[in-house]
Amino acid sequence: MIAMIPARLGSKRISKKNIRYMIDKPLIQYPIELAVNSGLFESILVNSESEELGRVAETMGAKFHKRPPELATDTATNRDFTYEFCKKHACDYVIMVNPTSPLLKAETLANFVKFVEISDYDTVLSTISVQAESFYKGEPLNFTFAEKINSQLLEPVDEVIWAITAWRRDKFIENQENGVNPVFGGKVGYFAIPKDESCDLDTLEEWRIAEGILLSRINKQQERYLNL
Amino acid sequence: MIAMIPARLGSKRISKKNIRYMIDKPLIQYPIELAVNSGLFESILVNSESEELGRVAETMGAKFHKRPPELATDTATNRDFTYEFCKKHACDYVIMVNPTSPLLKAETLANFVKFVEISDYDTVLSTISVQAESFYKGEPLNFTFAEKINSQLLEPVDEVIWAITAWRRDKFIENQENGVNPVFGGKVGYFAIPKDESCDLDTLEEWRIAEGILLSRINKQQERYLNL
Repeated sequence: MIAMIPARLGSKRISKKNIRYMIDKPLIQYPIELAVNSGLFESILVNSESEELGRVAETMGAKFHKRPPELATDTATNRDFTYEFCKKHACDYVIMVNPTSPLLKAETLANFVKFVEISDYDTVLSTISVQAESFYKGEPLNFTFAEKINSQLLEPVDEVIWAITAWRRDKFIENQENGVNPVFGGKVGYFAIPKDESCDLDTLEEWRIAEGILLSRINKQQERYLNL
Repeated sequence: MIAMIPARLGSKRISKKNIRYMIDKPLIQYPIELAVNSGLFESILVNSESEELGRVAETMGAKFHKRPPELATDTATNRDFTYEFCKKHACDYVIMVNPTSPLLKAETLANFVKFVEISDYDTVLSTISVQAESFYKGEPLNFTFAEKINSQLLEPVDEVIWAITAWRRDKFIENQENGVNPVFGGKVGYFAIPKDESCDLDTLEEWRIAEGILLSRINKQQERYLNL
């Protein structure tokens, strides 16, 4: 298994997200340390168009896969840059670890990889499993208006979060070359990760929230009660 | 409109949650201040079995609705205690503001109330609207494996979060007395609130995350970049 960490130097809404410090280290350092410390991968590669970012990644223990600049534009797709990566690196599975998931814990990555190993999927997506009364197209999806049941009994909705994704390399290449969408290629499975390890980093508010969550893991507020 | 803030003194997983300090004030103070400062309600009542909690709520600017003890057990339902409340307080709508939503902002509460006023629903639920590839019962719900589309183009799933709920009082009473579930009674609408104003408070980890998010609104980390 190879870990691929996609990391452009440019980013749209938050400028230079991957080298911006989240608390005490640049964002890109989170997935690199996670992958390196896991001991799960033959190889850990940062997939970037930027030589500078590549050199930084190397100081943090990753290798550098230089992505052609035309696959690092705002319109370049995951499909295309992952295909180019797969062609260059022989392996059974490519595990994409997204830098925008700094909340991901070591145990969760290990569980995900184990799931990929023991199952027989060509694609494994990471999801969060949500048990809540849900509407879809304006209609109740997993509940009825006739009764209110305990949310723990509701059928969950599993939402893909793209924190970690596994692709069987040969299948990915084969699909791409046959004009079939390889991102959801072959036999598709999904694996739920804890909700509090998922975050978005599209806006500065989301960035601060992720920082707040990380800080809350370190600095626990003292337990205090109102005196009644 | 009347605001009802349900708050038992006991709580299952986090002990005495409502009087536990979240950062600098007890949890119950968040919804009370939110409702009081909004100026939107004729009356703001904390619905509790506890006289002590009631007195505290009064010092914070709310009134106290004493709930019969049999409606404050672990098995008592929202349906039953809200019915008992409705019978005692004449109004057009009861707006339930949940103490487990300390992240809720004033603007969001105001937008919700405005939506209730201008629409003609008997029940209005609060939701978060999620645009992500979603699986339901193991099958893709709002996407197909044939293509990967931009998540902003995906049909959202709207998840009920119970942060704020509005019920037309007369309809609620009528439904309950006719053996119809009043929680989703009459014409049911829903209103999406920002995702970062929603949280769970069932576990200590979730509690700390909410604290982290609140702290991140106050103490912004300094913006800092890696020097490439």
